Amino acid sequence: MAIKTVIRQVNEHVGETVVIGSWLNNKRSSGKIQFLQLRDGTGYIQAVVVKSEVSEDTWNNAKSLTQESSMYVTGVIREEPRSQSGYEMTVTDLEILHLTENYPITPKEHGVDFLMDHRHLWLRSSKQRAIMVIRAQIISAIQDFFDQNGFTLVDPPILTPTSAEGTTNLFHTKYFEEDAYLTQSGQLYMEAAAMALGKVYSFGPTFRAEKSKTRRHLIEFWMIEPEMAFTDHEESLKVQEQFIAHVVQSVLANCRTELEAVGRDVSKLENIKAPFPRITYDEAIEFLNSQDFDIPWGEDFGAPHETAIAERYDKPVFITHYPAGIKAFYMKPDPNRPEVVLCADMIAPEGYGEIIGGSQRIDDPELMEARFNEHNLSMDTYQWYMDLRKYGSVPHSGFGLGLERTVAWICGLDHVRETIPFPRTLYRLYP
Amino acid sequence: MAIKTVIRQVNEHVGETVVIGSWLNNKRSSGKIQFLQLRDGTGYIQAVVVKSEVSEDTWNNAKSLTQESSMYVTGVIREEPRSQSGYEMTVTDLEILHLTENYPITPKEHGVDFLMDHRHLWLRSSKQRAIMVIRAQIISAIQDFFDQNGFTLVDPPILTPTSAEGTTNLFHTKYFEEDAYLTQSGQLYMEAAAMALGKVYSFGPTFRAEKSKTRRHLIEFWMIEPEMAFTDHEESLKVQEQFIAHVVQSVLANCRTELEAVGRDVSKLENIKAPFPRITYDEAIEFLNSQDFDIPWGEDFGAPHETAIAERYDKPVFITHYPAGIKAFYMKPDPNRPEVVLCADMIAPEGYGEIIGGSQRIDDPELMEARFNEHNLSMDTYQWYMDLRKYGSVPHSGFGLGLERTVAWICGLDHVRETIPFPRTLYRLYP
Ligand SMILES: [Mg+2]
Ligand SMILES: [Mg+2]
Repeated sequence: MAIKTVIRQVNEHVGETVVIGSWLNNKRSSGKIQFLQLRDGTGYIQAVVVKSEVSEDTWNNAKSLTQESSMYVTGVIREEPRSQSGYEMTVTDLEILHLTENYPITPKEHGVDFLMDHRHLWLRSSKQRAIMVIRAQIISAIQDFFDQNGFTLVDPPILTPTSAEGTTNLFHTKYFEEDAYLTQSGQLYMEAAAMALGKVYSFGPTFRAEKSKTRRHLIEFWMIEPEMAFTDHEESLKVQEQFIAHVVQSVLANCRTELEAVGRDVSKLENIKAPFPRITYDEAIEFLNSQDFDIPWGEDFGAPHETAIAERYDKPVFITHYPAGIKAFYMKPDPNRPEVVLCADMIAPEGYGEIIGGSQRIDDPELMEARFNEHNLSMDTYQWYMDLRKYGSVPHSGFGLGLERTVAWICGLDHVRETIPFPRTLYRLYP
Repeated sequence: MAIKTVIRQVNEHVGETVVIGSWLNNKRSSGKIQFLQLRDGTGYIQAVVVKSEVSEDTWNNAKSLTQESSMYVTGVIREEPRSQSGYEMTVTDLEILHLTENYPITPKEHGVDFLMDHRHLWLRSSKQRAIMVIRAQIISAIQDFFDQNGFTLVDPPILTPTSAEGTTNLFHTKYFEEDAYLTQSGQLYMEAAAMALGKVYSFGPTFRAEKSKTRRHLIEFWMIEPEMAFTDHEESLKVQEQFIAHVVQSVLANCRTELEAVGRDVSKLENIKAPFPRITYDEAIEFLNSQDFDIPWGEDFGAPHETAIAERYDKPVFITHYPAGIKAFYMKPDPNRPEVVLCADMIAPEGYGEIIGGSQRIDDPELMEARFNEHNLSMDTYQWYMDLRKYGSVPHSGFGLGLERTVAWICGLDHVRETIPFPRTLYRLYP
């Protein structure tokens, strides 16, 4: 009996007869030999069918295979240094499961809309599969980092009664008799969790109903939001740079084949190790104005500003101490200079923009109440958040990582739409 | 300088002076000694303040502490076999961060509504914290199992154009000009992903807008949905029982203290090892009718039926081969008996009900098309799903695990509302 295995594990079966469920990726023939390029989702292998060594049925089955036809193929695994995977299969038997006709995605070029309409099939192509494998490795590295550093995973709610930053860009739904909105960030809930569990992190979907169409934005995207009790801004920056370095090094260690499949220049990633450079908002403004930009103090940076700053470094760069006026209400003012806050954005290299935003949070109950009033936050809705300052308030910090931008940067992709299995963009809810 | 650490790691600092950010859980005093019960989210420790050995300020600071007051406490770690954690701290210094007044959750009994209104604070209590730690351990064990068994994590979309099982129980939102619904299951998308990646699993939130109020239901809950290409019903059952056994054994190995804090009888969990018992739907009907039940063949089981069946076993039990009419349209009929499908529900012991539902999927394009017509599924909306059978269809199986019911069972809880940080129930969207 042949052993059932998968392509990734053929190295454990050299000299043995195995059976592999697979799809035809491509084939070529030289009259008496057919070379089948097979894929099974775990990898790629060449299966060789020699006319003189197989039954007529097996030979004809192989001949009838079209792109994306599915089969159980039986054969002997051999080491083959000339092949990319290092192994080949000599076929002894071939059972066709399904002959595919007119597979829509062919080796020729297709337009983006066509590929997005066929996302459920496009995922089978080698580059898209590689991106999904790297995405999964990034997620796994994220979980490892936080699990190994004493964080507890906490899932904040997706359906929320409102948002402290306004409901204009939120998706609305009727929650029985009440109004509910899809979360844009779980941070406030993570602050509550940090007071119960010390160090926590979330991993989940977030939503922004924004009518913007850029290569950096998705409507539905995944965020990682760590929050740490008894942790100040400075300690938080150290966690952030170690975290990102761990993720990048873990992809380099585990996804060489996939990085090659997406055409990534890995030399750009090898250098991503802590510490990361830091500049203040003030220094950034000064630099920008020394270049072609004309940006007054107090204005937020856009993508061109971020790119100009990032270009000076071959690692992610922290921009710290933004003016309070352009940052969120909960950020703690710098005690030495209250017009700026203890915050940082981490800007990825190579023009990939902001991947992390974080800050120390206000812990003083009176200042928080003042901020509530300035921002017209309803005490009814946010009493629970105010309670975190009323009962045992402590210094704490946290940050949010955008998963898809991180995947785009690590894979070196032009557009975030390829970083998620089924992207939701302004005009795309299908498939 | 005192080393900053957390309670979970005091074992690494015996004989050293450390500083710990913490909250007062409780205290008692004997005039010249104060015993502070501290928590920091990572654990509990007793800190001893001896009047003759500290400054007057430190003594008075300790005296002024109320429940949930926050502080940095400095002291020397000692081994103390009589204490539950095995360690104690001799305090040398105590810096108050925030004195709490009138903390709403006191050691006396509170009603469920009161506790749920204060969920953001209730999470700080030792039982609720322990449940959250066990939940995180369960999630970590789930990820480990799938990562170690060759599965790739894939995130299916949350916003979907419609649902194959009708939109009555779905939350609706406007997606710009289109209608969108919050996902109830990512399964169909996971089938597409399995054809690209072989074995995949999802971990994400799902939603059911059902006006039911039982101790087993949440409006917003998390599901794990694995899907496996080239895998039949029988192989899928093997994965399921190994998976559940791994999760339970991993919680037993890593969360003894937390299981004790929730009052779990762990002897009920120690036996949860593969293989699990199996009975067919037919046998279950026969058994139920031999008892006090009167249930005709073809009707679905409710909670009392499931409990009666589960009570016969001290492990989870598979009920297999349900009638096609009461199961989902995509389940594959048993080739030997097409009126039943190749499916199984896994029922947890001790009355916790169904935790897994799974099946082999229809792979025959013609049968799938017939099912589409029977169920009035629009080819416009589901063309992409039909494509999975049109292009390289293969035998495949999958299942879905409900996270919160699994947490309830492993923790031995009466109600799922305590299994998730911020539960969403029929009348509860706050905090
Ligand atoms: Mg920014
Ligand atoms: Mg059922």
